[in-house]
Amino acid sequence: MSETHHRAALIDGKSIAADMRAEIAKEAGELTEQGWPPLLVSVSVGDQAASDLYVRNQKKHAESAGVAFEARDYPENTSLEQLIGILQGLNHDPRVNGIIIQRPLPEHIPVKALQKAVHPLKDVEGMHPASIGNIVYNDLALGPCTAVAAVEILKTLPMEMEGLNVTVIGHSEIVGKPIAFLMMGLGATVTVCHHMTRSVAMHSRAADAVFVAVGKAGLVTGDMIKPGAAVIDIGINRVEGKTVGDVDFDSVAEVAGWLTPVPGGVGPVTVATLMKNAVLATRMQMEHYRESYTKTDF
Amino acid sequence: MSETHHRAALIDGKSIAADMRAEIAKEAGELTEQGWPPLLVSVSVGDQAASDLYVRNQKKHAESAGVAFEARDYPENTSLEQLIGILQGLNHDPRVNGIIIQRPLPEHIPVKALQKAVHPLKDVEGMHPASIGNIVYNDLALGPCTAVAAVEILKTLPMEMEGLNVTVIGHSEIVGKPIAFLMMGLGATVTVCHHMTRSVAMHSRAADAVFVAVGKAGLVTGDMIKPGAAVIDIGINRVEGKTVGDVDFDSVAEVAGWLTPVPGGVGPVTVATLMKNAVLATRMQMEHYRESYTKTDF
Repeated sequence: MSETHHRAALIDGKSIAADMRAEIAKEAGELTEQGWPPLLVSVSVGDQAASDLYVRNQKKHAESAGVAFEARDYPENTSLEQLIGILQGLNHDPRVNGIIIQRPLPEHIPVKALQKAVHPLKDVEGMHPASIGNIVYNDLALGPCTAVAAVEILKTLPMEMEGLNVTVIGHSEIVGKPIAFLMMGLGATVTVCHHMTRSVAMHSRAADAVFVAVGKAGLVTGDMIKPGAAVIDIGINRVEGKTVGDVDFDSVAEVAGWLTPVPGGVGPVTVATLMKNAVLATRMQMEHYRESYTKTDF
Repeated sequence: MSETHHRAALIDGKSIAADMRAEIAKEAGELTEQGWPPLLVSVSVGDQAASDLYVRNQKKHAESAGVAFEARDYPENTSLEQLIGILQGLNHDPRVNGIIIQRPLPEHIPVKALQKAVHPLKDVEGMHPASIGNIVYNDLALGPCTAVAAVEILKTLPMEMEGLNVTVIGHSEIVGKPIAFLMMGLGATVTVCHHMTRSVAMHSRAADAVFVAVGKAGLVTGDMIKPGAAVIDIGINRVEGKTVGDVDFDSVAEVAGWLTPVPGGVGPVTVATLMKNAVLATRMQMEHYRESYTKTDF
């Protein structure tokens, strides 16, 4: 991996994702044997060009993990009421175990209204307020995929999570904040920085692990990183026709102990986490169903 | 208040609470005029000796804020199923706007199961996972009272919340973590420390504001505080027959710029916040009711 001294070890997201998929396929097989074959339904609205490649990629990874995947496309002029009705239909359909709402949506459709209409037990993207709240409560729950993936990657490294000093750069509801709760749940000491933080470098330099999820190429440079620290880059930016993260790769790779590349780092693990959520959701639905038949003394 | 130099200004929680109650009473009056007089129902189970004083205090403050308060006591041997049925009855009763579950509960009653059975729109204690998730999403929601109260106190001080360096000591689901999200929502840079943190002092000394909610008398001493910082003490401990917080009062008062006393700091504001949640819940229920009658083109 390294041609010069002091180069960070690159974390191979594809290899972590492949290990996860093998585990998921085993679970999916067990669920299928018990009458619960996991099925994801993807809902797209309007022009599909922007998300088409992404949806096909999800379908491919779902099927290689033993999870059935059905893509549904609705026309641009579908109303919010119609979409909520469609989601309620999917909530009520026992064959459907997980619902994915593809972005972008047409302007007249507020994404949060749709996310709240997905039943928490079928919320494989982990976007419902109740899903987020359950993470805060450290309950077994469907977490937001990107945040869960980033934390899963850190957990593959030979570091003790308890007492670890962690800095999260970016405080979005679906990435930065959930990473913070997940890491707190593992016993880390967590600082969350963002665009209003006076000195991000002060906090990032003190950290054993840095997560960055802002969406700004070159934001994190080598002088902001403690030597040997782990750097998990969640940014996705297009610069001169190339996909890059939020990390200035060359300078950070000289200093960090571990670094995720973009692409090939957090991305593949995020898709694998969606599939992991699909089998977890299916299992929760199976248990929920069984509970309602356990009591026979009416 | 001060006899020596460099003494922190004491924050008067009772006075903040009195201002809040005046505002709440005005809102309660408006709601009553529109047919929605706010009513809180308190549910106690088993031996009431431990919580009796507390419940009577809530009742007194409710009534002085224009909020009706009904205390219901159930016997020790009430089953979980019975209690959930009782809560569902309260959820369905249009006269009831907020439900409080008093602790301690008998050992056979898991508190979380009851908290989840309260409808999120009637969850005036802000304990339902969906309430917590809505805080993360920065939505208008019923927040956990103690956490909201601690943040409201900080907001009364002449400090700019955006970019403020804040350290939270204690990472409980109902106090430490919600304070962290609330402060992130206000634009602060937040670090959360706890019993696994390597050096709490390193983080607390860098902070413009420190929240402490651990439950350990004398935990925070003056040498852990940056001169002039605000210290919000949420601990409640009994030491030699006296109620004290988590802060070593004398040494911290020499260094801090502002300090909440215990008792008389966060406590009174927490009770006022419960009443604020009661009128907020009533307003949300009124709007929810009205919405369902807005559409007349069947």
